[in-house]
Amino acid sequence: MPIYKAPNRDFRFIINEMLDLESYGNLPGFENASEDLINSILEEGGKFTSEVIAPLNQIGDQEGCTRHEDGSVTTPTGFKEAFNQYREAGWGTLTQPEELGGQGLPQVIGFALKEMMSSANQSFGMYPGLTNGAIEALKAKGTPEQKEMYLPKMVSGQWTGTMNLTEPHCGTDLGMIRTKADPQADGSYLITGTKIFISAGEHDMAENIIHLVLAKTPGAPESSKGISLFVVPKFLVNEDGSLGERNGVSCGSIEHKMGIHGNSTCVLNYDGATGWMVGEENKGLAAMFIMMNEARLGTGMQGYAQAEAAYQNAVAYALDRRQGRALTGPVDPEEKADPIFVHPDIRRLLMDAKVFTEGSRAFCLWSALQADLSEKAQTEEERKSAHEMLSLLTPVIKGFTTDKGYETATNMQQVFGGHGYIEEWGMSQFVRDARIAQIYEGANGIQAMDLCGRKLGQNGGATIQAFFAMVDEEIAAAKSNPQLVEIATRLEKALGEQKAATMWFMQNAMTNPNNLGAGAYNYMHIMGLVTLGYMWLKMAKTAAEKLSGGAGDKAFYEAKLVSANYYAERFLPDSGALRRKLEAGAENMMALPADAFQTAA
Amino acid sequence: MPIYKAPNRDFRFIINEMLDLESYGNLPGFENASEDLINSILEEGGKFTSEVIAPLNQIGDQEGCTRHEDGSVTTPTGFKEAFNQYREAGWGTLTQPEELGGQGLPQVIGFALKEMMSSANQSFGMYPGLTNGAIEALKAKGTPEQKEMYLPKMVSGQWTGTMNLTEPHCGTDLGMIRTKADPQADGSYLITGTKIFISAGEHDMAENIIHLVLAKTPGAPESSKGISLFVVPKFLVNEDGSLGERNGVSCGSIEHKMGIHGNSTCVLNYDGATGWMVGEENKGLAAMFIMMNEARLGTGMQGYAQAEAAYQNAVAYALDRRQGRALTGPVDPEEKADPIFVHPDIRRLLMDAKVFTEGSRAFCLWSALQADLSEKAQTEEERKSAHEMLSLLTPVIKGFTTDKGYETATNMQQVFGGHGYIEEWGMSQFVRDARIAQIYEGANGIQAMDLCGRKLGQNGGATIQAFFAMVDEEIAAAKSNPQLVEIATRLEKALGEQKAATMWFMQNAMTNPNNLGAGAYNYMHIMGLVTLGYMWLKMAKTAAEKLSGGAGDKAFYEAKLVSANYYAERFLPDSGALRRKLEAGAENMMALPADAFQTAA
Repeated sequence: MPIYKAPNRDFRFIINEMLDLESYGNLPGFENASEDLINSILEEGGKFTSEVIAPLNQIGDQEGCTRHEDGSVTTPTGFKEAFNQYREAGWGTLTQPEELGGQGLPQVIGFALKEMMSSANQSFGMYPGLTNGAIEALKAKGTPEQKEMYLPKMVSGQWTGTMNLTEPHCGTDLGMIRTKADPQADGSYLITGTKIFISAGEHDMAENIIHLVLAKTPGAPESSKGISLFVVPKFLVNEDGSLGERNGVSCGSIEHKMGIHGNSTCVLNYDGATGWMVGEENKGLAAMFIMMNEARLGTGMQGYAQAEAAYQNAVAYALDRRQGRALTGPVDPEEKADPIFVHPDIRRLLMDAKVFTEGSRAFCLWSALQADLSEKAQTEEERKSAHEMLSLLTPVIKGFTTDKGYETATNMQQVFGGHGYIEEWGMSQFVRDARIAQIYEGANGIQAMDLCGRKLGQNGGATIQAFFAMVDEEIAAAKSNPQLVEIATRLEKALGEQKAATMWFMQNAMTNPNNLGAGAYNYMHIMGLVTLGYMWLKMAKTAAEKLSGGAGDKAFYEAKLVSANYYAERFLPDSGALRRKLEAGAENMMALPADAFQTAA
Repeated sequence: MPIYKAPNRDFRFIINEMLDLESYGNLPGFENASEDLINSILEEGGKFTSEVIAPLNQIGDQEGCTRHEDGSVTTPTGFKEAFNQYREAGWGTLTQPEELGGQGLPQVIGFALKEMMSSANQSFGMYPGLTNGAIEALKAKGTPEQKEMYLPKMVSGQWTGTMNLTEPHCGTDLGMIRTKADPQADGSYLITGTKIFISAGEHDMAENIIHLVLAKTPGAPESSKGISLFVVPKFLVNEDGSLGERNGVSCGSIEHKMGIHGNSTCVLNYDGATGWMVGEENKGLAAMFIMMNEARLGTGMQGYAQAEAAYQNAVAYALDRRQGRALTGPVDPEEKADPIFVHPDIRRLLMDAKVFTEGSRAFCLWSALQADLSEKAQTEEERKSAHEMLSLLTPVIKGFTTDKGYETATNMQQVFGGHGYIEEWGMSQFVRDARIAQIYEGANGIQAMDLCGRKLGQNGGATIQAFFAMVDEEIAAAKSNPQLVEIATRLEKALGEQKAATMWFMQNAMTNPNNLGAGAYNYMHIMGLVTLGYMWLKMAKTAAEKLSGGAGDKAFYEAKLVSANYYAERFLPDSGALRRKLEAGAENMMALPADAFQTAA
């Protein structure tokens, strides 16, 4: 069975040393987040996820979820009991406000736990994950009564939540949805329609499920400007908070998917189900984006979380499996062969995975800190700039990290040779589970268009300029340090490629918007490479400081410096190739008619 | 259900126009291969694979193979009947010599059929595919009696074959195998041991299965120089050719795999099974490489064959599915949305797939022609140079084409958004099936080492120099043609990167062989990009000639020119990035000790 252990040394390095979370102790919610508290949460979270959640991962894959004739759904063996433990330990309450029964801690800490959950068992982690998205939407747009009715029980984990966007004929283009909301005299609505791909849509892990559903009121505009958001509980809730009648929403079927079998991905049929509007009429999309932005950060995290789990198993296998001899002569001459860990091509795969997962972890936790600062920083200016930077980087976290996460999981499977292809080893599941993160919460092509079509121009371009300035500043400070000069120099070159690509868009996208569409994906990847390079520079700087300060655990910090240079020399060169592809523009890409793609003749 | 249609227009273009197979009519076996005959084989092969084989692909994935208590194995519904049709039509006999009941046609034609089989149903195609490998080994190394006993029935498809290399503790490092061969007084051997991952190892599609098995004779050297090859039939064969007793080989279990469920991947237990040595004692590895080289070409072909099938479905979906509007304004204003085919990022994925599959098809068919020429060219010098070029390029075909094939299948799945993740659409299967080709027949990291550690130095470096000269010559001839100058110029740059990388190896691999190991994978990909560029230049040249000659089907040839330029601008830039990674060498890659890879603490 595959193993998983929380990478707590790395979490502590990023949170306590690189981000230095204690230094934000003057901000609300941070005052209690001492290094000691953080370390003990990491410790307990690590135990819970490795001992309780991870052992259910392969079971979930093999059993999947079962829909019964009455429409009820049973989750895999052990999921319900594990969720009881999650609820009892209060893991869902970490970052929620105290008035909702939460502990009010920074998002950074919550994200560390989310990564562990996702690495240990992505399907399981999605149940509370989607609940979080629904909580955020209700917090932002719900009426006081809605908040009171739903939020405390969702925060505690007594109830879970879902997001209902997709319909059979529309996913990305939400303007086309057909689900109807008919207003009733009492202010409620009757919701009718079919939603598909609803993760955690029906299950046996909680007593109620709170669906947030996009639907159209009569006469609403045809576009995405005619969508409203509704809250539709599986069981209606009485005024005293007890559960009432079963609402008119039911699971029609469970999808057979490539992966995440442990999560019940449902077709949900709404047959005059009673719902209540959340936020303003026809402004449902804005409310939904609150959920989506939360979910997109979480999805980016899923990308590298699967890579991390796969990596841990690949390292163990590479140290155990013996085939062939080191190119430089036998390492274990008394054995019949050396461990495959000695082969450069295996080491390449492991180093690629190491610098990707560690870099992405820094990226996601740093982003979680921006989320904290966007709410809690002392000045409006600081809050605004954190918010804008996070908004700019959200599509990069989602798109780049999940692409590379899938690639990394695939590479870790490769370390196992033929055994990687056999299900019992568990490596196939990591790949199959990682695949979904590139698709859901806005397929990665949509992320690229969000980045280039919307976010680059945000604030008249001031946010992307602020990003450049932020990276430039770190580079300039590093260049005088011999331990940092190599990564700083290579990062400067990669940042130059990104600036040139940005300029190319400015000069060529106005005359032909297809030039933007043709290069957006390349741009997203350049920016991902640069951002991870920025993270590696920050990590290297922290490590260099620790080393020169005579800190213990020298090997750990030295490994960070080696890894930073490896990232610089082995990942950053792609930025130049991506820029050249981008600068090819749309001409040849869009030149051929449909007929030219149909070669069967 | 996913569709498949043989890309016959493209086959005709490559075989009849680019390779101009008729111009080799003076060579044995080519004299009958007229354009008419080729076209009618393509036509019939296309019908057979799309109408008989492709409809069984998803069934095979869903049902898998079933092992019964007595060790017998049932293949998925329809497989046995389809194989009867395959046998009756004589599809397996196309390229085999007439004295074995074959039709003696060029390999090029056989490869076109293999591609169709693999695109239509990879699991099914593997049954005859492995038989081919076994046939080649027996042809090369079998005694006259062995040839007479086995080959005609294997060629006709009455019997199938397998390759038995891997054991639980050894895959790549065949020197470690433990299966024993005890010599008997009558010249036979008793084979005892366990083999794993044996494709088509046991099934109900043929009356006998001829296993070719690596084993060790008593006192054989411990290394790969102590391996011998044995033929071990499932049923012993009487002198009159009729089937005798059941031999002591049985299927212990069927593996649960990520994909290729329709092929029975077996654990085979040899319990004193009777076998006969093939070739010389302790020279089994050389015999096995005959099978492997055959298999590696076929495996490279599988890589792009899955990409082709996935691509055809993605094109159909992109033309059907409507979401959003073209960036340049609505294309179908009367509809609620445009087909997603109009979006540049979708077109990028389709164009990437198109130029990869068409380029790879040209590469594999051109290589098949080299295989023909290595046997049948008029002079020894021509035969030798074709053989050496094919030998050099075999790891590139296997390693590069399967990597890109998997990537392409994944990209085609992405075109479907969420539907791509649902098994019923069939896109997940293409990805899962494509994955194996990167692993088996020598994992791709092994291919890279074969290329860089063995093939580059082959003939004192003369073969790689011949490759450079061949590509240089095509570039030089093209640069004066305005229709070809862009691709020629970009290919020249990419070839320059390859030459520089070759030089870097020469200067740095002697002092530290890890520098070779660290860059081998990058080199394999550079060479793949250059070789596909060379193919695109050849295709573009052919298309330009057809256009200037006033040929019909103008749109087809114009699409080739656009595609060639697209390939040049969108694929070749990676060669520069790969070279820079390669030139980073092994230092940081190999610097960290095992402890540094274990971050859970």
